[in-house]
Amino acid sequence: MLALRFEDDELRLSEVGVPGRAGEALVRVLLAGICNTDLEIVRGYAGFQGTLGHEFVGVVESAPGDSALEGRRVVGEINAGCGLCELCRAGDARHCPRRTVLGIHGRDGAFAEYLQLPASNLLPVPDEVSDERAVFTEPLAAACGINERVRIDEAMRVAVVGDGKLGLLCAQALKALTGARVTLVGKHASKLEIAARRGVETVEAVELPRSFARAFDVAVEASGSESGFETALGLLGPRGTLVLKSTFHGVTSFNAAPVVVDEISIVGSRCGRFAPALELLKEDAVEVESMIDAEYTLADGPRAFEHAASKGALKVLLRNKSRES
Amino acid sequence: MLALRFEDDELRLSEVGVPGRAGEALVRVLLAGICNTDLEIVRGYAGFQGTLGHEFVGVVESAPGDSALEGRRVVGEINAGCGLCELCRAGDARHCPRRTVLGIHGRDGAFAEYLQLPASNLLPVPDEVSDERAVFTEPLAAACGINERVRIDEAMRVAVVGDGKLGLLCAQALKALTGARVTLVGKHASKLEIAARRGVETVEAVELPRSFARAFDVAVEASGSESGFETALGLLGPRGTLVLKSTFHGVTSFNAAPVVVDEISIVGSRCGRFAPALELLKEDAVEVESMIDAEYTLADGPRAFEHAASKGALKVLLRNKSRES
Repeated sequence: MLALRFEDDELRLSEVGVPGRAGEALVRVLLAGICNTDLEIVRGYAGFQGTLGHEFVGVVESAPGDSALEGRRVVGEINAGCGLCELCRAGDARHCPRRTVLGIHGRDGAFAEYLQLPASNLLPVPDEVSDERAVFTEPLAAACGINERVRIDEAMRVAVVGDGKLGLLCAQALKALTGARVTLVGKHASKLEIAARRGVETVEAVELPRSFARAFDVAVEASGSESGFETALGLLGPRGTLVLKSTFHGVTSFNAAPVVVDEISIVGSRCGRFAPALELLKEDAVEVESMIDAEYTLADGPRAFEHAASKGALKVLLRNKSRES
Repeated sequence: MLALRFEDDELRLSEVGVPGRAGEALVRVLLAGICNTDLEIVRGYAGFQGTLGHEFVGVVESAPGDSALEGRRVVGEINAGCGLCELCRAGDARHCPRRTVLGIHGRDGAFAEYLQLPASNLLPVPDEVSDERAVFTEPLAAACGINERVRIDEAMRVAVVGDGKLGLLCAQALKALTGARVTLVGKHASKLEIAARRGVETVEAVELPRSFARAFDVAVEASGSESGFETALGLLGPRGTLVLKSTFHGVTSFNAAPVVVDEISIVGSRCGRFAPALELLKEDAVEVESMIDAEYTLADGPRAFEHAASKGALKVLLRNKSRES
């Protein structure tokens, strides 16, 4: 089968065998999304070698032990645990020390004709949710994951810094999940517009009102830049919470003194559960289609990566055309 | 009266008037302690000018509106709020945006014959608690304050990094307040010994067992150094909490990626309430006397500061001798 792989410091299309790990489900990939993490891997920041891709929607070809899944359209949680440790036995493999992560760590990913995951990682996609929306489940779940890590209620003011893919999803998800007053701080009127349509207040970073300083209870850093980190910190009042959502590569510098004096909490947030994200997609509570910049075939993967890495790009998708078509 | 002041970038003894702010209590200082924050101010890092000192025990000379306090031996919470804002009306001035802070911000401090604070800031010292123990109330309260910011239960493993004054108090306070398994990581056998006598496990930083990596639920950074920050971070397991207790001056660099991947929380902690600290002192649940390195008279203040700033110094006290004696 065709697979888009990162090997020997190079992104390339390869012909590889269909994966055949015993005991796991086999999924035919329909559509996959390129994430900033994929770009970081290709830049050599993550140490992963293999087939890339962790955002997908597909159809189950076989699912040992869970035949009801066969033929279903599914999305899949990306962390596969050892199944034996305390965390896995509690049903959450996200921090299993022996976990593999689809297309990120120790496990080939979704930029291929087929992928494998444990059947227990797969969730059927409701009929109302199109492939083009379902492919956003993974990043939307990551946005929803903030709600697992930080208590947010509707009396609170929440800022999201960064109007890229992640920021747009975080702002919309937090608005929909918590009812809080959410403000998205960004640099691009056309992107801010997407969140504005879903009831998120928006403001351009260069026009940040003075009254915003120290006015927020929670600020989400979703820009992946050091200046975004500083901006987010400056928005927080005493005992506010800064959520780190982007995996910066390299080192961030910050002044720890105000974090102590104002008793700020800085909270890292990575993957979220898929169920709340599927629910938001089903209810049409978030707008994702307008975040699609372009679609390429898997065979055109390297060009898709170039597009995704271009300045200001939103979501670039990879569609799997079966060879016969 | 005599006062030890930081003015025009210089620490000096001055003869100044007894403070006479209407509506506040007047306290005759018996004994005061030099804190690292005082040393930072003298190094020019804090922007404060005036009489230094925020750790004290004294006797109330007058207390408008609270005459029951007059003649009582007291300690005093150091944040004085505006009394009008939401925070102050909820009884907690620690984050009042218009607060003054004794000897730190906008208010002369305790290295003087007399000081003033609102009567509502003062707490009588139980008879069982000597002056030499009571003078530790403020830093001990700061240690107890961690317990306000982070949920710690007896099933958790807590590390404290740094065996200076702050680390010794944090380790003992958390052990006594939470019953958790507490480990103090330090560099000085003689200091570690103090905490060990109170049931704290101790380990020298150079001999940190490999098994400690990622083994702790909470790590308190009390060393004030960047290496302490890194050490504390390395001790934490997934979803662990790093408590920042030292006010670093300047900028700290850290790698944000593992904070996101392991979903670490970094929680700033500053001042604590005095009541729990007085309770620990009264119950003899913490050992503080052995942390006293030396005692000087107020008139000998500059020499006391030199001592306090010397490498490895623990607590240096300033005693107020009335002029007649």
